[in-house]
Amino acid sequence: MSKRIITFGEILLRLSPPNHSKLYKAKSFEAHYGGAEANVAASLALFGCDVKFVTAVPDNELGDSALSELRSYGVEPIAVKQGNRLGVYYFEQGASERPGKVLYDRTSSSFANLKKGMIDWETIFKDSDWFHWSGINASLSQDLAELCKEALEVASKMGLTISADLNYRPTLWNYGKNASEIMPELVQYCDVLLGGTDDSEKCLGIKINPSETIENVFTKWKQQFSKLKTIVSTMRYDANASSNIIGAVLWDGTNLLKSKEYNITHIIDRIGAGDAFMAGLIYGLIAYPDSNQVALEYAVAASCLKHSIPGDVNLSTVNEIIALINGAGGGRVIR
Amino acid sequence: MSKRIITFGEILLRLSPPNHSKLYKAKSFEAHYGGAEANVAASLALFGCDVKFVTAVPDNELGDSALSELRSYGVEPIAVKQGNRLGVYYFEQGASERPGKVLYDRTSSSFANLKKGMIDWETIFKDSDWFHWSGINASLSQDLAELCKEALEVASKMGLTISADLNYRPTLWNYGKNASEIMPELVQYCDVLLGGTDDSEKCLGIKINPSETIENVFTKWKQQFSKLKTIVSTMRYDANASSNIIGAVLWDGTNLLKSKEYNITHIIDRIGAGDAFMAGLIYGLIAYPDSNQVALEYAVAASCLKHSIPGDVNLSTVNEIIALINGAGGGRVIR
Amino acid sequence: MSKRIITFGEILLRLSPPNHSKLYKAKSFEAHYGGAEANVAASLALFGCDVKFVTAVPDNELGDSALSELRSYGVEPIAVKQGNRLGVYYFEQGASERPGKVLYDRTSSSFANLKKGMIDWETIFKDSDWFHWSGINASLSQDLAELCKEALEVASKMGLTISADLNYRPTLWNYGKNASEIMPELVQYCDVLLGGTDDSEKCLGIKINPSETIENVFTKWKQQFSKLKTIVSTMRYDANASSNIIGAVLWDGTNLLKSKEYNITHIIDRIGAGDAFMAGLIYGLIAYPDSNQVALEYAVAASCLKHSIPGDVNLSTVNEIIALINGAGGGRVIR
Amino acid sequence: MSKRIITFGEILLRLSPPNHSKLYKAKSFEAHYGGAEANVAASLALFGCDVKFVTAVPDNELGDSALSELRSYGVEPIAVKQGNRLGVYYFEQGASERPGKVLYDRTSSSFANLKKGMIDWETIFKDSDWFHWSGINASLSQDLAELCKEALEVASKMGLTISADLNYRPTLWNYGKNASEIMPELVQYCDVLLGGTDDSEKCLGIKINPSETIENVFTKWKQQFSKLKTIVSTMRYDANASSNIIGAVLWDGTNLLKSKEYNITHIIDRIGAGDAFMAGLIYGLIAYPDSNQVALEYAVAASCLKHSIPGDVNLSTVNEIIALINGAGGGRVIR
Amino acid sequence: MSKRIITFGEILLRLSPPNHSKLYKAKSFEAHYGGAEANVAASLALFGCDVKFVTAVPDNELGDSALSELRSYGVEPIAVKQGNRLGVYYFEQGASERPGKVLYDRTSSSFANLKKGMIDWETIFKDSDWFHWSGINASLSQDLAELCKEALEVASKMGLTISADLNYRPTLWNYGKNASEIMPELVQYCDVLLGGTDDSEKCLGIKINPSETIENVFTKWKQQFSKLKTIVSTMRYDANASSNIIGAVLWDGTNLLKSKEYNITHIIDRIGAGDAFMAGLIYGLIAYPDSNQVALEYAVAASCLKHSIPGDVNLSTVNEIIALINGAGGGRVIR
Amino acid sequence: MSKRIITFGEILLRLSPPNHSKLYKAKSFEAHYGGAEANVAASLALFGCDVKFVTAVPDNELGDSALSELRSYGVEPIAVKQGNRLGVYYFEQGASERPGKVLYDRTSSSFANLKKGMIDWETIFKDSDWFHWSGINASLSQDLAELCKEALEVASKMGLTISADLNYRPTLWNYGKNASEIMPELVQYCDVLLGGTDDSEKCLGIKINPSETIENVFTKWKQQFSKLKTIVSTMRYDANASSNIIGAVLWDGTNLLKSKEYNITHIIDRIGAGDAFMAGLIYGLIAYPDSNQVALEYAVAASCLKHSIPGDVNLSTVNEIIALINGAGGGRVIR
Repeated sequence: MSKRIITFGEILLRLSPPNHSKLYKAKSFEAHYGGAEANVAASLALFGCDVKFVTAVPDNELGDSALSELRSYGVEPIAVKQGNRLGVYYFEQGASERPGKVLYDRTSSSFANLKKGMIDWETIFKDSDWFHWSGINASLSQDLAELCKEALEVASKMGLTISADLNYRPTLWNYGKNASEIMPELVQYCDVLLGGTDDSEKCLGIKINPSETIENVFTKWKQQFSKLKTIVSTMRYDANASSNIIGAVLWDGTNLLKSKEYNITHIIDRIGAGDAFMAGLIYGLIAYPDSNQVALEYAVAASCLKHSIPGDVNLSTVNEIIALINGAGGGRVIR
Repeated sequence: MSKRIITFGEILLRLSPPNHSKLYKAKSFEAHYGGAEANVAASLALFGCDVKFVTAVPDNELGDSALSELRSYGVEPIAVKQGNRLGVYYFEQGASERPGKVLYDRTSSSFANLKKGMIDWETIFKDSDWFHWSGINASLSQDLAELCKEALEVASKMGLTISADLNYRPTLWNYGKNASEIMPELVQYCDVLLGGTDDSEKCLGIKINPSETIENVFTKWKQQFSKLKTIVSTMRYDANASSNIIGAVLWDGTNLLKSKEYNITHIIDRIGAGDAFMAGLIYGLIAYPDSNQVALEYAVAASCLKHSIPGDVNLSTVNEIIALINGAGGGRVIR
Repeated sequence: MSKRIITFGEILLRLSPPNHSKLYKAKSFEAHYGGAEANVAASLALFGCDVKFVTAVPDNELGDSALSELRSYGVEPIAVKQGNRLGVYYFEQGASERPGKVLYDRTSSSFANLKKGMIDWETIFKDSDWFHWSGINASLSQDLAELCKEALEVASKMGLTISADLNYRPTLWNYGKNASEIMPELVQYCDVLLGGTDDSEKCLGIKINPSETIENVFTKWKQQFSKLKTIVSTMRYDANASSNIIGAVLWDGTNLLKSKEYNITHIIDRIGAGDAFMAGLIYGLIAYPDSNQVALEYAVAASCLKHSIPGDVNLSTVNEIIALINGAGGGRVIR
Repeated sequence: MSKRIITFGEILLRLSPPNHSKLYKAKSFEAHYGGAEANVAASLALFGCDVKFVTAVPDNELGDSALSELRSYGVEPIAVKQGNRLGVYYFEQGASERPGKVLYDRTSSSFANLKKGMIDWETIFKDSDWFHWSGINASLSQDLAELCKEALEVASKMGLTISADLNYRPTLWNYGKNASEIMPELVQYCDVLLGGTDDSEKCLGIKINPSETIENVFTKWKQQFSKLKTIVSTMRYDANASSNIIGAVLWDGTNLLKSKEYNITHIIDRIGAGDAFMAGLIYGLIAYPDSNQVALEYAVAASCLKHSIPGDVNLSTVNEIIALINGAGGGRVIR
Repeated sequence: MSKRIITFGEILLRLSPPNHSKLYKAKSFEAHYGGAEANVAASLALFGCDVKFVTAVPDNELGDSALSELRSYGVEPIAVKQGNRLGVYYFEQGASERPGKVLYDRTSSSFANLKKGMIDWETIFKDSDWFHWSGINASLSQDLAELCKEALEVASKMGLTISADLNYRPTLWNYGKNASEIMPELVQYCDVLLGGTDDSEKCLGIKINPSETIENVFTKWKQQFSKLKTIVSTMRYDANASSNIIGAVLWDGTNLLKSKEYNITHIIDRIGAGDAFMAGLIYGLIAYPDSNQVALEYAVAASCLKHSIPGDVNLSTVNEIIALINGAGGGRVIR
Repeated sequence: MSKRIITFGEILLRLSPPNHSKLYKAKSFEAHYGGAEANVAASLALFGCDVKFVTAVPDNELGDSALSELRSYGVEPIAVKQGNRLGVYYFEQGASERPGKVLYDRTSSSFANLKKGMIDWETIFKDSDWFHWSGINASLSQDLAELCKEALEVASKMGLTISADLNYRPTLWNYGKNASEIMPELVQYCDVLLGGTDDSEKCLGIKINPSETIENVFTKWKQQFSKLKTIVSTMRYDANASSNIIGAVLWDGTNLLKSKEYNITHIIDRIGAGDAFMAGLIYGLIAYPDSNQVALEYAVAASCLKHSIPGDVNLSTVNEIIALINGAGGGRVIR
């Protein structure tokens, strides 16, 4: 895999009480580091890719620790050191009918205070092939939305493939703009897009009606964002907090490919399953340029395995993912 | 919720080995405090009710710790300080086909040595609206059975609504009386009763035959205990130690209402699920006086969520329970 | 102890890696709740006092958890619910020559955003006898400094005894004012003051020279703040992060009383040792109105025991503290 | 149970990261001691049998600890003390579609260096009734294969009943011989054999074709190994790493008996499930000499319960297994 | 060591909160099994002696677990199975000036209900050489005091060497007799006695005055209990809960031998230090019959090492103890 | 710090039971990765140096994990992937008079099987300035001793500064050669040497007599190894397993410099203290080329801080070390 990939986003300290304890009675927290684009970077590095992660952290022990964690996966962090807060999120693991809960505590973080001009995109993108970002960046502040745009313009100009995950989180859009006022001008730069079709109107400003087929939705997206070549969407069925069925679709402008579905009966950690999918898709599109179907299967299998792994990052290797695609489920102990 | 509720019972230290370890190989124990009526009190306090819990504990660190735990939920404990033992129970968590096990170690506890005349019921019940107790109290000693009767007479005289959970535990009735010799004269004071219909003969002395409908059983109960207005019973189907389906019925003297059923696929902690139901029912009957169906749904949803929460106490809030009633299962992470 | 005490301040979530791990390599955090005035309140409640704690927390699981913790000690919290951040601090336990480290993450917390007029001091102070606050409040924002002043004026007018702990933390004074511009007008309301004499100039604006005796320093303080009746200061000698000797002095305007000194050879948790002293002093001054020496000994013994207790709060009881004053050290196991 | 049973094999230190962590991110390991024949011995001792376990361990703390663990179950260890390595295996617990993984680290262990002549079989087998071993022994080295043969000859000559578990692990056969070159001359001594029919060719050198019935396979085995009286095989269906259905068959030379099947919906620890079956079978055959069906049901129920128990050893008691056979699943808490 | 040793006493479940937590805030407990005579038995077994421990436990998981623990050390337990309580004690670890605390919860335990005639002493003592007991047994009930006497008479008649540890715990003597009414008639059977000279009057009824030398005290003891050959006493100096200096003296009727003293600067677990001494003394007297000084040094070194070992049992080996006697302190890592 | 440093050695998995548990009773192990030269590399990287670590690991999860850990500190690992064993060592933490214990389990590890010709030293040393190795490498096998020589010849030829730590561990020299037959021809390449003077004869073959001054010893060393410019030795006084005093000396061929001494009263983890010294010395010699005294003080302060840090690696930063040199001990909490 000679491609060089850049992802850009925030890395947060995740604090989750062990053993399904509720936050209300938490006596301790397990610490993980994660964030949408950081998780994509880490997974790609574990696949053997050459990955850099652009971010900002405070110049203190927690900022250093977050970067150390990234390096441990083989990611090269490029971090602006500023401010005094590493963003935090509290995660209460759900079970059965009790949903998981995320409590964001990322206001005024080092990353949230980034602005246009603080990052030397030309140098970073030099000799790179792919740029990935997500809608969370744009949700944090007007400044960050503008910084995203700056990055996208440079990446586009320098000829990188650009992928995005809409990652629409209504509670994060608090600076006075709706997602639909910001996201379209960013998505126009993208070649590859992961998005929930339900978010079409609120996130992209493209109205759809409930009876519309997914091909129609994707066609509308393509009409508005002409650069898009690959649009993907993940699905969950029969879900409670402990078990569900997952699958995904990929639209290449012509055909709608459907992936195999996996029945995940025991979820260990669901956070980062979308990022695992995204990393799997980027890897798949690069490694299997001739088969979007294989790329899609790789992405779904990666996401499936992430549900069995504690923390935000998919620790699965290429071999493990391919074994699952080839039919080796969890039923047999590997010795 | 302006109603003031009093519950009366024992609070025990629960010791359970972590991670499904058996007691035989336990190297450590997680500590929780619980007890049928204490759990009801704690859950009601977390719903925002004004709750007092009447009990007895030793005047030592463990007694203080038990009361501290109650206060942490917002319960006001009223505790006789006597004796030198806080009752204990060991709980071995089951899994799949291995049943959970409770090993009671409550003999000679401070609570078990309570006697008539030790508690000033008139003062306690003053300005209160509801009194709740369970059959466990009556099982511990003749003295406690008489103390229950004393409490019930005062509560009845002072006009409180009275609820009881039969909570029939055969292994606890060891002082020479059968439950059916004691419980009927206590149940006669009750307005609301939670009971397993299978226990009708052994606990209440009312014979039923297996083919009898549940309406018939409840009708017989009503015939004997004329004060009863609301009788409820919970059900479990397809149960192993890790998963099952729950539901409940409520009989209001005329109609038998059936609740929605919940398929709990991953049980985190089943202890206290009945107490969570009872607290939900009391809350429901008070908060929704016009709809027994809503009260029942609230109680079942509360019990359902308890299965996902470690410890004896249902930490669920009113909002979480109502969200479940309204269809929000665990499938979606709340952000 | 019939006195009713009010304390006012922030309650924070403390996150500390276990077993002397550094923050840089923290894989989990133990959770405690604490804060200077909250610790004083909790300790006083454990002494059997009637205590209320005035604060602000977010209306979420962490805010509820902080209040629950306070209630567990018997403190009645009076909390403004606003904002979305519970303040946090990370604590890296030191050892021997490695100092402990506190990393504050309390910017924009619910408490930090309190303003004049948000708290009904008249109602709170009604029937109360004592008001305690610390300089940390005043360091957080101009608004909080003004709110402190508001509280002090009302408390003063309503005749409460007022105590303060200077608690000078240079890194917290970031809103453009020096402590010496703010603190004097707040300290003027105080009857009882705990302060490090080294901070005289920076915190109170009163210059002293190094050779000055402590009586001289306290005399200067008294000259400026005429209401002061009791001034105390704690000392540490031969300290590393694991062991030291502590003692204290109390000046009653006439005599400088010196306490017994304790050689603490194994520190378990040093955070809150000053708050334990303050709570001990308030209790001592109330319980032993005829002997400042006894009050001082009580305060120092309380602080000594705090060093042996994990978390921010001194869990020691009156009996334990008196036993230490009377010479029962840790050398004998109590059975 | 007056029968005296000898088992022979290696005891290993098992190191498994807690909470489904992957080995790659393991920050701690839970320690268990186990090994195929050690697990059989421990389970039989917990059933009340008189059991000795023949092995080799280094003369250091870990060797002592392994023997201490065996004694804790009531097994009498007979251990050659030699070498300086206790064999180790790392176990990564799987979940859902992620398979569990075993990483053996047993090269050059004290046991692996045993040779013919080092063990006084005559003394050990004196007054004993049953000898059990497994194919793992034979896989470790030519010396061990010869030592097995030595043991089998003596046991045979002294009239013990002999049982074996093929336990075919391809990755362990590394010393230049195939299992099929070694195992047949060892299996010829056996009265009771547990084997996967899929391993017929590779392990026993007996070719079968996929369409062959299990009776046919067992008939072929019996033809080659004339001493065999009881052949058993276990089955797993619908398996992922967290749930599956298990059952077993027993062929007595005439009839193929089928066991009840159990749907294990939540696997706590699958390691040792085969050994639990083997111990159950030996116990069953001894305790219920008149009913192979009961023996088989006992073995399957034992194996079923093992899936719910952390560690390598089945801690289930005779009463618990019989209760499961009699229909008491995990659905009811035992109080 | 061909001597066979019998000890007799209660084995208790010890529950201690980890990391110096107070009982009041305990969220979990570490589980250990211990008891004065059980600890002596375990330590002797680890020294390689042949040891049986006579006791009573309930026929449940906890009783089985206690026996399993004893077997793990190589002790052969001989247990009456009766009653339904395993005795418990809660242990709050102290630190520096905060003393450790033991909260006994052993009322009505299986052991406490033993009576004369329940134990077949003749069979137990057959072929045995040494019998050890402690004053705790006699403190629990009149029945147990009589059972002790029964055992002592048989042991004496059968010619065993008899040792006792006075182990005077005032809070345990609750059945209406003072120790001094009971202990003398039991001590008269003893050859070896460990006792605190401060307990002379209260435990043995022999008055001493504070200025009396220890030789005088021991001479008085010898005058009353003529069978005594060896009297020992341990000392602690400069003690807080974390550090102290220990030593011991041994009087052989003629000379008062003094041991080396050890400065224990960091106590890990002090419980069982006296039992470690007692086991060391028994071992020393047997292994070094020609040198009471060596026996005494062995006992003190054993007790010294126990302070560094978690739990009730001294896990030190003969080699480790001899290395300490020979001057190898803890300053060098053994590789 | 523009210098590029290469270290060469084995990285091992360290398994240590928590909370001062003995190996004999270990129920879990904390996992750390370490090794003499790996620890030096990690510490230097944390100081901000550019460091590569040359080693060999198996191509499995544990090998990957070891490399990941190195990367997390900023070290770039250059690893031969071969064999199937990552070396392991078990570490039993001592306390007071109980010494710590290391149990090596590194036979047949991937590293131990390295041979001449497997590593491309020319490429590795290109553009590098410093090469560090230790005597442990040479102790493992004749092949490794030859590989060390190969590396030293290349490094020497390419002009790197070469440092070595004798690290004499008698139990590791098992392949038939004494250290004194091997080490001298390796030490002759060194510019900087850390060694215990007690090991002069056994490790270097240079006899000294006990009364000789350290200057004399170092002079003899210099006579034999003419390239040596800087010789250092560390000292421990008054040591038990929990506390001691440390210091060091440095001889520059002319003067014997003595460092400040530190009284470490509470040791958290002593493993790696020598490696922390070595890393500190290398950093010091590079960063302070004009002052060997400052370099020495830096090394000793680094080593002092390591004693307070769990694991093998000194996590201290340059700022923390300089603060300690400047007199900031652990007595004050940094806020």
